[in-house]
Amino acid sequence: MALAISAASGVSRDAAAVERLQQLLAGEMAQVNALILERLQSPVQLIPELASHLIASGGKRLRPLVTLAAAKLCGYQGPHHIRLAAAGEFIHTATLLHDDVIDESALRRGQATANIVWGNQASVLVGDFLFSRAFQLMVETGSQEVLRILSTASAIIAEGEVLQLQTAHNLTTDETAYMSVIASKTAALFAAAAEVGAVIANRPAAERDALRSYGADLGIAYQLVDDVLDYTGRRSTLGKNTGDDFREGKITLPIVLAHRKADEEERSFWQRALCDGDQSDSDFKRARRLLERHSALTDTIAEARRFAVSAEAALQIFPGNEYHEALSDLAGFAPDRLY
Amino acid sequence: MALAISAASGVSRDAAAVERLQQLLAGEMAQVNALILERLQSPVQLIPELASHLIASGGKRLRPLVTLAAAKLCGYQGPHHIRLAAAGEFIHTATLLHDDVIDESALRRGQATANIVWGNQASVLVGDFLFSRAFQLMVETGSQEVLRILSTASAIIAEGEVLQLQTAHNLTTDETAYMSVIASKTAALFAAAAEVGAVIANRPAAERDALRSYGADLGIAYQLVDDVLDYTGRRSTLGKNTGDDFREGKITLPIVLAHRKADEEERSFWQRALCDGDQSDSDFKRARRLLERHSALTDTIAEARRFAVSAEAALQIFPGNEYHEALSDLAGFAPDRLY
Repeated sequence: MALAISAASGVSRDAAAVERLQQLLAGEMAQVNALILERLQSPVQLIPELASHLIASGGKRLRPLVTLAAAKLCGYQGPHHIRLAAAGEFIHTATLLHDDVIDESALRRGQATANIVWGNQASVLVGDFLFSRAFQLMVETGSQEVLRILSTASAIIAEGEVLQLQTAHNLTTDETAYMSVIASKTAALFAAAAEVGAVIANRPAAERDALRSYGADLGIAYQLVDDVLDYTGRRSTLGKNTGDDFREGKITLPIVLAHRKADEEERSFWQRALCDGDQSDSDFKRARRLLERHSALTDTIAEARRFAVSAEAALQIFPGNEYHEALSDLAGFAPDRLY
Repeated sequence: MALAISAASGVSRDAAAVERLQQLLAGEMAQVNALILERLQSPVQLIPELASHLIASGGKRLRPLVTLAAAKLCGYQGPHHIRLAAAGEFIHTATLLHDDVIDESALRRGQATANIVWGNQASVLVGDFLFSRAFQLMVETGSQEVLRILSTASAIIAEGEVLQLQTAHNLTTDETAYMSVIASKTAALFAAAAEVGAVIANRPAAERDALRSYGADLGIAYQLVDDVLDYTGRRSTLGKNTGDDFREGKITLPIVLAHRKADEEERSFWQRALCDGDQSDSDFKRARRLLERHSALTDTIAEARRFAVSAEAALQIFPGNEYHEALSDLAGFAPDRLY
């Protein structure tokens, strides 16, 4: 694809691809953002406060962009892609809020006092609110098929998150189990977000399937890079700390690959740090060294690149136009992502 | 209503009314239970394990009963009331799971170890799964109106739960604020569960509105009694501990009423126990004495009775039949509830 994206501009090709989509869809994204703000409202003031803190905090709005671009690629002229884009962002934000919930086992019920009864509970409830709002928006499209696709995706996301809980701290997790987690927790929503663009445009099954495949492969590529960035990213560009996955004992693909090649001493290290929860300050650096020694990070990026290529290929049944190019670059440059 | 329910049988009139509904709808309830079991299934084993623990634990299935009876009252002959009854139970169970989440503030992130990363997170995610399954079931009914009603109810439930968080530990909460909490967190789902029975039966607006009013008033009566039982119930019949609301500093109607009539010393007591979170072992007994001294429990039951009468009255536009009688008794005897 011949795009006016240059690495010399100081912006990564991935960031440039996202910016290109944002520019192409600037008018629609303004409507999506307005709708998001409108539907965040509630007589219960804490809800818009808590939710807008997260939603307004400058995420890339990748899922809305995918829905809008997919609808435009399918020649859609109606208003419902705006609603579906907002719904996708609400579902995504709800899952982020629920991801942040911390476990109760460390808490003694009796010791809870007024000032601590807040964070977890409010996060869960505001997530529930956003989830409900997402369904209200979908209902407004009048499409049963859209509702079927997105309610199924929501169930699959929850399954993926539970599966991730179960694979955490468990070094017997293999590549198949890991891929199953990310296919559910991340790719399912990207797949649905892309597919519904074709559904509201009443396009034939081949185009729906193509966009669904595109979204699924993009989602997997995106998550693989995310898992690498948790070890290599810079806090200043990433907007969050590196090392979260390591501290939480998440078994991501880099770990699976490095553990497979580990000698006995290295296996003991991974066991202690990820399963026994016994980490010292220098352990994260050591983990990074081991991942590099066994090419686990570059191999994960290579895997991401295979899914990115597959995502681009899925779009080939569509005519070449600016939306096709932008979606293609979004996938193609995903493995170059720096944040 | 002349019902074959006798207090002499040793069963409370309320329990007898629930049993009557269960008998009337035994065939449908068997289908609902089978559908619930079927839709709990997931390749992720923890999900049916955790969810069935709660769902199979012998709740009364009040919301499913209301949906089924409402549909039958409206002469519905199709299969969708089974799906909606299961969906209502899933939404209810999801909110129970999310209610049980404990706050994170007492936790230090760094100290979390493998064995504690379970309870809260799994509860939240399985709740999300059930919520998604509920929407999948609703989609299968093919009714946009049903989806609109239940997605709106879900958003309102979340608002009510957040509002409840905000009124906890806050003795300036008045009757209006309290009624607003329970109208949202409890009555909204009962109202929707009843209304959808008329919607799938394609009944006119007057009947939809009547069932909606019935459900809303029943829900409020039910919650008012629930709040009394948290002070007066017996653990053996209630199936849960009394005093939970007191320990959690929830400002329910009995508290609002007793606090309004409290002298200075009593106000200090409520402030210390409910707001400052400083409770000793004898405080719950003292709270019960104060609630009795100011007739706060009987006044709350009297309020429940007003809503129960209103619920019965809402049904008057329907012809007299066994479903009418059973729904009427369910509301009318709700204030007699012992558990």
